[in-house]
Amino acid sequence: MQMKKLYGGIEAGGTKFVCVIASGPSHIVDEIRFKTTTPDETLGRAIKFFQPFISSGQINTIGVGCFGPLDVTPESPTYGFIAATPKPGWSNTNVLGILRGALGIKIAFDTDVNVAGLGEYKWGVSQGYDPSLYLTIGTGIGGGYIKEGRPLVGLLSPEMGHLRIPHNRELDPFVGNCPFHDDCFEGLASGPSIEKRLGVPGATVPENDPFWNLEADYIASALMNYILTLSPKKIVLGGGVMQRGFLFSRVRWRVRELLNGYVANKSLLENIDDYIVPPGLGNQSGSLGAIALAMQLEERVKDSRV
Amino acid sequence: MQMKKLYGGIEAGGTKFVCVIASGPSHIVDEIRFKTTTPDETLGRAIKFFQPFISSGQINTIGVGCFGPLDVTPESPTYGFIAATPKPGWSNTNVLGILRGALGIKIAFDTDVNVAGLGEYKWGVSQGYDPSLYLTIGTGIGGGYIKEGRPLVGLLSPEMGHLRIPHNRELDPFVGNCPFHDDCFEGLASGPSIEKRLGVPGATVPENDPFWNLEADYIASALMNYILTLSPKKIVLGGGVMQRGFLFSRVRWRVRELLNGYVANKSLLENIDDYIVPPGLGNQSGSLGAIALAMQLEERVKDSRV
Repeated sequence: MQMKKLYGGIEAGGTKFVCVIASGPSHIVDEIRFKTTTPDETLGRAIKFFQPFISSGQINTIGVGCFGPLDVTPESPTYGFIAATPKPGWSNTNVLGILRGALGIKIAFDTDVNVAGLGEYKWGVSQGYDPSLYLTIGTGIGGGYIKEGRPLVGLLSPEMGHLRIPHNRELDPFVGNCPFHDDCFEGLASGPSIEKRLGVPGATVPENDPFWNLEADYIASALMNYILTLSPKKIVLGGGVMQRGFLFSRVRWRVRELLNGYVANKSLLENIDDYIVPPGLGNQSGSLGAIALAMQLEERVKDSRV
Repeated sequence: MQMKKLYGGIEAGGTKFVCVIASGPSHIVDEIRFKTTTPDETLGRAIKFFQPFISSGQINTIGVGCFGPLDVTPESPTYGFIAATPKPGWSNTNVLGILRGALGIKIAFDTDVNVAGLGEYKWGVSQGYDPSLYLTIGTGIGGGYIKEGRPLVGLLSPEMGHLRIPHNRELDPFVGNCPFHDDCFEGLASGPSIEKRLGVPGATVPENDPFWNLEADYIASALMNYILTLSPKKIVLGGGVMQRGFLFSRVRWRVRELLNGYVANKSLLENIDDYIVPPGLGNQSGSLGAIALAMQLEERVKDSRV
């Protein structure tokens, strides 16, 4: 039996870090999860986890999906840095530089949502669907758009959580809590915006609270915009807010109502339950996506040597 | 001197048709423009224009950029058809089939906005900017997103004119005139919506009318969403409404105000005058884009023979 080649993966989230050694979802050799504290302590733990696998030659490439705002432009002097962030101690942290310096191996680096989208495309529920969209609705809102197996990069990496959408001020006078745009999608529908508006965490708000129809409306408005702009063949919704599973059917229903038959496609008209879906990899889209990213980097390095 | 190879191009608009024989913007051999009437008469005139160039062997490939809603999925049984449209007589017209049947040569076919975007990318103002976005704001609103030299196609061709954006009901109680979504971007900001709201065509509304600030706000909201989602490196705004040139500076100003420094990029922060721009090919983005589309088809045919 041939040994499968192993890679390292880091889901570097603002709340927790997940580090794995794996060749894919069916072959996870080791895994560690810990809270995100200071950069020194958190990156230090990750480094300590990987070091033995590197010295023994078991891995030589690591993929990282990191929280942001992140500089992912390779030509930029601050490539691999986290920019200004409310997360204490992390503003202007050279995440990529610290990891490279300490580990001395090849590191592939991208945003947490791009990497989670890649994981779902490689092994999860959007396998075979090109292009596909992965959206996380949690502490923040962000999206990764995967086209021909790669996350879209243009002028910058997309920041699609900050869309301008209609704000129902009559039913929802809440001003919004995005520090940049007040009532953008993230400012109206992220976990913190729910808690600020209702005074309790969304996880404790009962299913029959009328607020959830507003939440579904905001999510559906944003999805309609992504559908009309990016035309994905599959939309995966992850993140803490989407743990409230009843939201899926309300969001699907509202997307169809908003589109109103305009996009005459079977996926939307007849099979929307298979079109807007939860992650296939559960809470491992990010860490396994980081493995997929590392594999892509190795492929590129090989290609460039040919 | 070597003769440059010639191609045929059709800009098939809902208002007018433009047919050209050219190898590019500096070498246009013949051109004809006429009003769009019935499908028989209009397509008949186009066919008559091209026939002599085909029989003499001067062209063997034509590109078409067609108004819609259009079926551009090659696998679909109604590929090349115009679907239900308010344009009298054109619903369910097999534009591609009629042209192919009459002309008997290779025809490349796409939406008017995708083709105009391609023209601007090949020879116009978005040359060298990948990805780029071409938006037309006129009788309807639509966008073509060009990535690696090709229009984006996903589940369908994007329909980004119908975005949901904030509607300022206080200053603008107009209900919107999109038959599908009332107050989507097109329903609020297209030429017909301006005329319906103000009772006169937008072309006659004076520059100091306060309505134009609303119009700039709607356009800027949509542009912000495209920027955050598609991350284009250049945005080209064409179409009848954008003939009111004073709108450009207002739209640019409002985009920066709305983004509020969130996308920390020089193109947006310092050089927005070069980022949101009018077409470089004037009123020929569509017809020359059709030539570029024909050239791409010939390249693909060649490649597949290798």
